Amino acid sequence: MTMISNGVIDAENEKVHAALEADYDHLGEVLARRGVDIGWVKDKVAAYGVAVPSWGVGTGGTRFARFPGQGEPRHIFDKLEDCAVIQQLTRATPTVSLHIPWDKVDDLKGLKQRGDELGLGFDAMNSNTFQDQPQQRLSYKYGSLSNANGATRQQAIDHNIECIEIGKVLGSKALTVWIGDGSNFPGQSHFARSFERYLEAMKSIYKHLPDDWRIFSEHKMYEPAFYSTVVQDWGSNYLIAQELGPKAFCLVDLGHHAPNVNIEMIVSRLIQFKKLGGFHFNDSKYGDDDLDTGSIDPYRLFLVFNELVDAELSHADGFDPAHMLDQSHNVTDPIESLMTSAMEVSRAYAQALIVDREALGGYQEGGDALMAYETLKKAFRTDVEPILAMARLEQEGAINPVSAYRASGYRQKIAGERPAVTGSGGGIV
Amino acid sequence: MTMISNGVIDAENEKVHAALEADYDHLGEVLARRGVDIGWVKDKVAAYGVAVPSWGVGTGGTRFARFPGQGEPRHIFDKLEDCAVIQQLTRATPTVSLHIPWDKVDDLKGLKQRGDELGLGFDAMNSNTFQDQPQQRLSYKYGSLSNANGATRQQAIDHNIECIEIGKVLGSKALTVWIGDGSNFPGQSHFARSFERYLEAMKSIYKHLPDDWRIFSEHKMYEPAFYSTVVQDWGSNYLIAQELGPKAFCLVDLGHHAPNVNIEMIVSRLIQFKKLGGFHFNDSKYGDDDLDTGSIDPYRLFLVFNELVDAELSHADGFDPAHMLDQSHNVTDPIESLMTSAMEVSRAYAQALIVDREALGGYQEGGDALMAYETLKKAFRTDVEPILAMARLEQEGAINPVSAYRASGYRQKIAGERPAVTGSGGGIV
Amino acid sequence: MTMISNGVIDAENEKVHAALEADYDHLGEVLARRGVDIGWVKDKVAAYGVAVPSWGVGTGGTRFARFPGQGEPRHIFDKLEDCAVIQQLTRATPTVSLHIPWDKVDDLKGLKQRGDELGLGFDAMNSNTFQDQPQQRLSYKYGSLSNANGATRQQAIDHNIECIEIGKVLGSKALTVWIGDGSNFPGQSHFARSFERYLEAMKSIYKHLPDDWRIFSEHKMYEPAFYSTVVQDWGSNYLIAQELGPKAFCLVDLGHHAPNVNIEMIVSRLIQFKKLGGFHFNDSKYGDDDLDTGSIDPYRLFLVFNELVDAELSHADGFDPAHMLDQSHNVTDPIESLMTSAMEVSRAYAQALIVDREALGGYQEGGDALMAYETLKKAFRTDVEPILAMARLEQEGAINPVSAYRASGYRQKIAGERPAVTGSGGGIV
Amino acid sequence: MTMISNGVIDAENEKVHAALEADYDHLGEVLARRGVDIGWVKDKVAAYGVAVPSWGVGTGGTRFARFPGQGEPRHIFDKLEDCAVIQQLTRATPTVSLHIPWDKVDDLKGLKQRGDELGLGFDAMNSNTFQDQPQQRLSYKYGSLSNANGATRQQAIDHNIECIEIGKVLGSKALTVWIGDGSNFPGQSHFARSFERYLEAMKSIYKHLPDDWRIFSEHKMYEPAFYSTVVQDWGSNYLIAQELGPKAFCLVDLGHHAPNVNIEMIVSRLIQFKKLGGFHFNDSKYGDDDLDTGSIDPYRLFLVFNELVDAELSHADGFDPAHMLDQSHNVTDPIESLMTSAMEVSRAYAQALIVDREALGGYQEGGDALMAYETLKKAFRTDVEPILAMARLEQEGAINPVSAYRASGYRQKIAGERPAVTGSGGGIV
Repeated sequence: MTMISNGVIDAENEKVHAALEADYDHLGEVLARRGVDIGWVKDKVAAYGVAVPSWGVGTGGTRFARFPGQGEPRHIFDKLEDCAVIQQLTRATPTVSLHIPWDKVDDLKGLKQRGDELGLGFDAMNSNTFQDQPQQRLSYKYGSLSNANGATRQQAIDHNIECIEIGKVLGSKALTVWIGDGSNFPGQSHFARSFERYLEAMKSIYKHLPDDWRIFSEHKMYEPAFYSTVVQDWGSNYLIAQELGPKAFCLVDLGHHAPNVNIEMIVSRLIQFKKLGGFHFNDSKYGDDDLDTGSIDPYRLFLVFNELVDAELSHADGFDPAHMLDQSHNVTDPIESLMTSAMEVSRAYAQALIVDREALGGYQEGGDALMAYETLKKAFRTDVEPILAMARLEQEGAINPVSAYRASGYRQKIAGERPAVTGSGGGIV
Repeated sequence: MTMISNGVIDAENEKVHAALEADYDHLGEVLARRGVDIGWVKDKVAAYGVAVPSWGVGTGGTRFARFPGQGEPRHIFDKLEDCAVIQQLTRATPTVSLHIPWDKVDDLKGLKQRGDELGLGFDAMNSNTFQDQPQQRLSYKYGSLSNANGATRQQAIDHNIECIEIGKVLGSKALTVWIGDGSNFPGQSHFARSFERYLEAMKSIYKHLPDDWRIFSEHKMYEPAFYSTVVQDWGSNYLIAQELGPKAFCLVDLGHHAPNVNIEMIVSRLIQFKKLGGFHFNDSKYGDDDLDTGSIDPYRLFLVFNELVDAELSHADGFDPAHMLDQSHNVTDPIESLMTSAMEVSRAYAQALIVDREALGGYQEGGDALMAYETLKKAFRTDVEPILAMARLEQEGAINPVSAYRASGYRQKIAGERPAVTGSGGGIV
Repeated sequence: MTMISNGVIDAENEKVHAALEADYDHLGEVLARRGVDIGWVKDKVAAYGVAVPSWGVGTGGTRFARFPGQGEPRHIFDKLEDCAVIQQLTRATPTVSLHIPWDKVDDLKGLKQRGDELGLGFDAMNSNTFQDQPQQRLSYKYGSLSNANGATRQQAIDHNIECIEIGKVLGSKALTVWIGDGSNFPGQSHFARSFERYLEAMKSIYKHLPDDWRIFSEHKMYEPAFYSTVVQDWGSNYLIAQELGPKAFCLVDLGHHAPNVNIEMIVSRLIQFKKLGGFHFNDSKYGDDDLDTGSIDPYRLFLVFNELVDAELSHADGFDPAHMLDQSHNVTDPIESLMTSAMEVSRAYAQALIVDREALGGYQEGGDALMAYETLKKAFRTDVEPILAMARLEQEGAINPVSAYRASGYRQKIAGERPAVTGSGGGIV
Repeated sequence: MTMISNGVIDAENEKVHAALEADYDHLGEVLARRGVDIGWVKDKVAAYGVAVPSWGVGTGGTRFARFPGQGEPRHIFDKLEDCAVIQQLTRATPTVSLHIPWDKVDDLKGLKQRGDELGLGFDAMNSNTFQDQPQQRLSYKYGSLSNANGATRQQAIDHNIECIEIGKVLGSKALTVWIGDGSNFPGQSHFARSFERYLEAMKSIYKHLPDDWRIFSEHKMYEPAFYSTVVQDWGSNYLIAQELGPKAFCLVDLGHHAPNVNIEMIVSRLIQFKKLGGFHFNDSKYGDDDLDTGSIDPYRLFLVFNELVDAELSHADGFDPAHMLDQSHNVTDPIESLMTSAMEVSRAYAQALIVDREALGGYQEGGDALMAYETLKKAFRTDVEPILAMARLEQEGAINPVSAYRASGYRQKIAGERPAVTGSGGGIV
């Protein structure tokens, strides 16, 4: 079933179809001059997908405030419908990533069935031990998997195991573990003992991981902990994956690094040492801003994909990263942001595909720094939008998803169905 | 009236009184060798105070979660009592800074009277246009004082004027304006038009400022806006104070700057150009972490006070900064953190007072970089705790405020009186 | 006269001329659909120029080492020839900016004449008080214009006046003052006194400035001073321009800011307050890396030009910025880097010209954050290379300047004429 | 033999001896109250030493300029004499770390003998493949151990082996490898291939390492490479040490990290995984500023030593770090800076020794964040100068090394013996 009438999409597509054909043809000529087959790029883009996080379709906020929009999803079934709109229009987001307990339901089979109806699969499961839930016995105020108290650690372990069990029913094949554990003051926690406890707890979870699953640990420099974080960077993250075993991999969130860090280099290192698990895509200017992917530094996103495509095309051993968006939509319609961001990810992928890698390799070996960086820039500045649009069109998506979405009146429709949420003034400053 | 029995304080003081006398005497000798009169330092410290923010006595949190403690204050009257404890034990926090509408009450005179009873004055008023309140007509989602919509700007102006009116009743003499206005994406707002609208709105507020009041604008690099912030740095802040007039000054929050910025130099510039309004003290490692003052980089705090004392002792023209703590206490008892932080501020002040400024001036003029920085370091590494403790003792405070507080059982008492708050799981990620 | 035979350029152009015509035509159609006249953009790009710094044509280095290339220029006459190559091929760099005393010659009229012959004008003069020259009487080790010693300040003032005198002969109309003054340790210098001395010294220079000249002060966060810098940011820079008078303006070097700072916002503020003097273009990832313009974050460069074009097209009062490249070419042929960078500047200008500003203004006023940023992104991802190439071709430049340059054998020729420079091992670590 | 007459030292010590005794006695009482034996601390401080880098006794500079002082050392024998002064006065720097080829001499046995005469041992050997030397066959412009050219890599390998051979004669037991390899532009180098070549080259060097030697790899985020660096962070550094084997360890330079990074946590991780090789101590505010240790953020230095002492006192398996200063003295007398910095290192060590670790452990386990950080702060704010001074005095050093040095007239003496160096104006901008 579809959330938006195909007639609406067709009508929107019709308006720009001829222009798209002309642009696609011309781009095909341009790429042909460079020895690139536009059809090959289009097919790869069409086969590419990025998961949408279930929590991404609700309006996000900061510790200062949250300004909800109209038609906020009430539960996972509402969220799935919003995700289906994104996938219908972009044809780039075939799966949804759930967060437990936010998305917990009694009827898991019903949830799976609803996903099937909407044409959505279930990506990695996300556990939550960075908040206290209403009925929760022990608090995570001073840590979860690294808590000094063994019972609290066990509670957090059990929750992760529960996430695996839920995921098994839904067809998920991975568990993502992000914790907020850390400290706010020098001295508050003992770095080595905390890390030992964390590793021990993760090993307990790892034991429950099915053979065809993977476990992703995610590092983050700071926030919610403001002096030290247990899994603070890719160095610690690598140690975790190494200690746990062959099913353990590192997840890279683009916003979780120190200022100025060369993220694409971290990606390369993790690929080289066979521990890249996947990505949480977003963009940022200051900290973990969780802005829309590619909105602040699109070239950086391209450089990350340059590494990914290099690994893909050279068939790097064990290379199979999971891709997910992870953003906070505070001032936009979340559906529009997620569609736009999914397309930005596809765009970076397409641009990286048309890099002349043979020439690049020659410049690298020959010390021709200028032509090497010009080779990347040339691919980056190619406007690949016609390829993305044609891939969408051929899969019955929208040439211009935002226009089609606005034309459909979907937001107005759900605004009438879902109760309005009033502004939250948290008072946390 | 006092919140804690003097008997408890006396008993605690008695335990360490003799040691304090010995330490104070020895420190007096050490300082005398350097030509510094310990009594002069002690008197200055005793006369020094820093305001406590009313919201600081509640447990803070992040966008991910808040983990409340026991005995959370329910309203401004509870908050005042907690503030009174801090002042009773430290004798360093004689005033409270209110936040409207969080602290709004119908009976303002009753509030003023309660402050009087508890020996607390009212410092600068803080307005709030970074959140939407339940009955609020127009949303601040896209800005308040800089909003493109004139009616929304007027609503924000009116709120600030209301804050002045409330403050008049309470005896406050200043309004602090911090806004969250800005944008999350390049293009979202027009920098110049936004700033023009902001300036125009501030001028409207300024017109309502009583002659003996000051208005403080506060800059912040980012958060809650993640691409641009209307009052993003001291440069913009200075322009505001200059455009508004002689009653307008710049407020410096120690956590609101870009990484690596030399904050003490900004303080110097604002003093030199007669626009330093005051401080929000806290500490940080990554962003606006709002950690306890002096907990991360105590030397930086000292260097700020080195500028303040330099201005004070040289009678810099127009120098009269307001001092306030502004912290978020996520993992500690807020009362303990605020007491400790108030003492850290006093400590930095005392250390700056014992700098040999005559020698320092000579080294600066003579290009003796090593002896210049050693002169500051020598003052910084002097343990001035005996001076602070003696100043507290002589004003009937506690030699060791945290010990006395814990001995008093105050937290346990209010935990029994104030209802427990359950953990908040915001789900904002 | 021309440094490279037109025949070489023609032959190179011939190879890609047909493709350029096709690309230009198609781009014209694409832009026409958006209501943009490609000819208007091309004409503006053709009329646009950026100055080349004389020191940029030599290989740069770091404190660790310098690795010279072949054919390093020996003096300003060699440098002028290299600059003429850049201008001949790109038609985007009509002027050269000199650095005194590096470019000092006895025969100024001869220098002027040589510039005329090569078709090069003389942009802003750059003074140098951050180094000690062989016969210099007083050292700048502890500062120049802010030195505690009056005689040293006078020496630095006199040098700047000399730069003005030289510039008068050459036809320059501006003096750029960048100093390295600052301190390496807390306490080493007194912030306020240093700034007072600096302002006093600048006023002395300002008095000698001809009526039709401008003086540019340039801020920089750090390096060579590593704790404080006298002109550390745009806030201090604005104060300087304000104190000096109407001929004083602020220069923005893209690499001289704290991490994460929103530079385009600073540009907007300086335009709004009529104090933007101009730019030193380059790019950076970590500090003042002085990398090739647009090589690290091309979108940031575009956002700066978005502000410039907004001001240009709205005829902002007093808006007349000077544009110069300021880069260090450590691993590339400097001529190739400067050509590429000049084209990147033109590219950002062209992209900013095609932004749909009317639509953008509507989105900004209407709170449509997503369409606002998409409006900028759409312009940015347009490949405007055909416009730049056509503008070059029509002015007898090269469609592909780097290819033409390599085909010309210019570097090999000068390598034979100019003596080889051996590697420098400074030993400064 | 001694460089400075003991009579001068005695006379200086006499002036402050009585005050020191009084201060030491009082501090002894203070520490006794806390259960700490001052004699135990003093003995540990007395036994502690940090190596001085041979290049540190010359005046440093930046890419902009170098401002030499008087009496600059001409060669390693001059440098050894300056180092002997530092050790004589501070009794905290018993060894010197050499840099090849800067310190290369024909008569290695004579060098060893001179060290013995001056009471100086030889610490880790430092190789140099970040510069080209006059007679060098192949350039390191595009890398050394990671160069695409095998012959260049071999040249760099051979140089490192030569350093080992020299070190064997001198009694060194470690080789420190820091390279400048990296890239200035995206695309310039292939991350994975570069790292593979580096690892292969390091393995060749490792094969030549004597059984009782260690090899230290040193990471650095950037400079001299400004886009990517082959050994960019502790994550890559750990991978290197792991790949090489049990004699390979990671060296941590305090200035080689991204902004805001929690360095003490990295130290803890490397200790936990048995790969901490040692330190290059210095301080910084912006980048790799190489300022005097403890001059910018003394609390951070203390927190690093808090980790080291925790490991020392708990007898962490395989814990045996090497300690060296690595600073650039641009505006001070290098001898004075190195003496002061050596004392700062000892100070941080002493402060960390008096932390109440039993209480701290209890607070950490019990979630008492406030008392935990106060426990560290209490130790940090203790003025341990009397302990350091007494340790120096008892070993015939100076109570106040800088005063004694200035009284000795050593700098004036060598200024007369060593030819003046004129200011260098590199012209590298």
